[in-house]
Amino acid sequence: MNPLTSPLLTDLYQLTMLHAYQVHRMTDTAVFELFVRKLPPTRNFMIAAGLDQALALLEQLRFSSDELAWVRESGRFGSGFAEYLESLRFSGDVYAMPEGTVFFPEEPILRVVAPLPEAQLVETRLMNLVQFETMIASKAARAVLVASDKLLVDFGLRRAHGAEAGLLAARASYLAGFSGTATVLAGAAFGVPLYGTMAHAFVQAHDDEVDAFARFVEVYPGGTTLLIDTYDTEQAARKVVALAKRLAPRGIRIGGVRLDSGDLGALAKNVRAIFDAAGLSEMKIFASGNLDENRIHELLAVGAPIDGFGVGTSLVTSSDAPSLDTVYKLQEYAGKPRRKRSDAKATWPGRKQVFRHYDGAGRMQYDVVSTEDDHAQTGEPLLVRVMAAGRRVGPAESLDSIRARTAGELARLPESLRGLTPSAPRYSVTIAPALHKLAREVDAACAEVPALCR
Amino acid sequence: MNPLTSPLLTDLYQLTMLHAYQVHRMTDTAVFELFVRKLPPTRNFMIAAGLDQALALLEQLRFSSDELAWVRESGRFGSGFAEYLESLRFSGDVYAMPEGTVFFPEEPILRVVAPLPEAQLVETRLMNLVQFETMIASKAARAVLVASDKLLVDFGLRRAHGAEAGLLAARASYLAGFSGTATVLAGAAFGVPLYGTMAHAFVQAHDDEVDAFARFVEVYPGGTTLLIDTYDTEQAARKVVALAKRLAPRGIRIGGVRLDSGDLGALAKNVRAIFDAAGLSEMKIFASGNLDENRIHELLAVGAPIDGFGVGTSLVTSSDAPSLDTVYKLQEYAGKPRRKRSDAKATWPGRKQVFRHYDGAGRMQYDVVSTEDDHAQTGEPLLVRVMAAGRRVGPAESLDSIRARTAGELARLPESLRGLTPSAPRYSVTIAPALHKLAREVDAACAEVPALCR
Repeated sequence: MNPLTSPLLTDLYQLTMLHAYQVHRMTDTAVFELFVRKLPPTRNFMIAAGLDQALALLEQLRFSSDELAWVRESGRFGSGFAEYLESLRFSGDVYAMPEGTVFFPEEPILRVVAPLPEAQLVETRLMNLVQFETMIASKAARAVLVASDKLLVDFGLRRAHGAEAGLLAARASYLAGFSGTATVLAGAAFGVPLYGTMAHAFVQAHDDEVDAFARFVEVYPGGTTLLIDTYDTEQAARKVVALAKRLAPRGIRIGGVRLDSGDLGALAKNVRAIFDAAGLSEMKIFASGNLDENRIHELLAVGAPIDGFGVGTSLVTSSDAPSLDTVYKLQEYAGKPRRKRSDAKATWPGRKQVFRHYDGAGRMQYDVVSTEDDHAQTGEPLLVRVMAAGRRVGPAESLDSIRARTAGELARLPESLRGLTPSAPRYSVTIAPALHKLAREVDAACAEVPALCR
Repeated sequence: MNPLTSPLLTDLYQLTMLHAYQVHRMTDTAVFELFVRKLPPTRNFMIAAGLDQALALLEQLRFSSDELAWVRESGRFGSGFAEYLESLRFSGDVYAMPEGTVFFPEEPILRVVAPLPEAQLVETRLMNLVQFETMIASKAARAVLVASDKLLVDFGLRRAHGAEAGLLAARASYLAGFSGTATVLAGAAFGVPLYGTMAHAFVQAHDDEVDAFARFVEVYPGGTTLLIDTYDTEQAARKVVALAKRLAPRGIRIGGVRLDSGDLGALAKNVRAIFDAAGLSEMKIFASGNLDENRIHELLAVGAPIDGFGVGTSLVTSSDAPSLDTVYKLQEYAGKPRRKRSDAKATWPGRKQVFRHYDGAGRMQYDVVSTEDDHAQTGEPLLVRVMAAGRRVGPAESLDSIRARTAGELARLPESLRGLTPSAPRYSVTIAPALHKLAREVDAACAEVPALCR
């Protein structure tokens, strides 16, 4: 059972409910929408991501013989359930915002329209995938906004939450505008550009720092990056100068250096001066070590001459907001719209669309959420059909295409949302009259059918 | 390429360094130790976890033909590197604290002794696995300490960071003392006990709440749990009473109810009173909804009659501390101990052991870190050899055995570390004279061989 694809990677209640749906033949069409209830305090917007993985999950949904054997032997389910699961496939439609789309709370980013058991079963893993990549892309976009002309590299695998988190964080940060990742498998699996330097252990495994540099450069003569903070950063920079001059006649080039500790701003200035004085103005300076978008912003604000940043733990754990308030709610069943009416968690019923409006300069101005079929709306509809009857409507979108979309989206952000501090006021998302009307109709019917409203 | 087992799930620099080690024949024995530099502010101790996965990683280390093809076609490495990787296996020894052991900052929890390339290559994924499970077990133990006689269930998969995080969070929280998980695959893969109820969508897919309850109970007549907060929690509790009385003559039993919203403390009291007044004192009350150990503590402190808790996002993301300051440092190469001497990040050289001392009541009193072979130490040594020449010393430990160890460890915690607030003073970890002496010797040799000290 491969955790990445197993339908048993779900909550037990999905299976127990599925069995009850099966027994009671509750297979009418259900509509679920996935949305984020509120922004973390340190986010001004979110970037939709993870759709490709979500669609792959739906396309590949099936129970293997091992998984069916577990269902049979668990003793939890009545007879016939494993047989039912054996033929279960996802046959529904999916509507979604394309990956890389900027979105806001209360806006559905994905809608599943499928027979109730199918739409229910996939809830857990669908949320697991979409919330993670969306969270990382949204975090990464902040660094991209403050350092758009710098090299930004994901260094986070070692402190990511397991294998898939490391791999998908590389994908999500790249589609948000990062330059690449250190995670090799993300290069092999997704074509994300790879970056890497050397570790302190490499330097320490040599008796002399210059020997370590020379041996590394000998193996990578085309312009590698050397880590220079193992002992004394500025002394090491001078060693790099001497080495570069010694090797230049043989056509060997050193590409740059990495600083991983100390006062990165001051060290970068001094190291830059050492290189420039030696005529090595093309030598790049790369920084890492507990960086996040705030620290990068500070370094750039004081004019630190740093060409690129490695961002690790803070990025891949979204450390200031390690989860999003993502939910997947039943909005319609058997043709009847449903809503949650009570308290702060009220939701809007039915199948919805998000319509976006731009100002004269092409910047996002406000969004309107309405019913899917509200022809009175003039804004740009953000959700599109991406799956029909269980098959993708088109081929999987390339990462380059998604990356280009994100760049366009970030360029259209209003100025007030581009900073690292919370915007005031928040971006305007309003509910259209057509959706208010539908909500009133649903409320009016609640007296007779309580299930329409919670 | 399966991300869970692929050696390409590593940082690019591990491969580039490996190639340089290969070219320069740097294959002497290296000793790396993995430790956590400091406690998150909201932790008083940590619980070692993830060793089983780490050892499986080392045992299974090999490059598949796909992975070798990627290495060849990447154009990043010289000739012969793929051939070198093809025969690469992990042949080293590993010493570690058994899973479930309580530990503190600066204490090595795992030591790898292997030819430098092997010990280097595995760094990234070893850290990725051990830091994640350790972080989750350490978070889970806090809830176990405040609610040891309650049912505690991991509900976090949907907001875990990907598939492996969800799966391993179930394992790590169970070994720390949780009762089980909702994640089905953790039951199938690890034998973690499974718990589950029903979702709001199940209730909403019926026109009437009682119909939903009756249909669910009909499929699970042995004592299932019903979710009663979809509309009005107390009204629903009365419906459950009526249903239970109606079904009892047919031998059908309702096991309990779940509350997922509202004032859980007040609702639990009222629902308990409704059940007790109806003679249903055996009916259990289960609570969920944005819970963490602090909220559970508050609910129990006000006497909320809750029998069990579902804990989700806060547990599986370790939301108040979503990473640990885990490092994997070269401590010895080619027979020479090494250390980092500078600033706040100074480390102690060589192969180390942790010796634990207990007071008369059997509670942990203080730890001493010394050299591995310090026969002057009288405390209990915590690191044991778990792998020799690339093979486990014994069979993988059962989860039940690890769980029993954790329970024993938690019982031996000093009182000051058992609370949810930071202990003052912190637990005492001292450095033995033998290790001070080794550090001085290493420092003295630094003038000649700088690599011995950073």
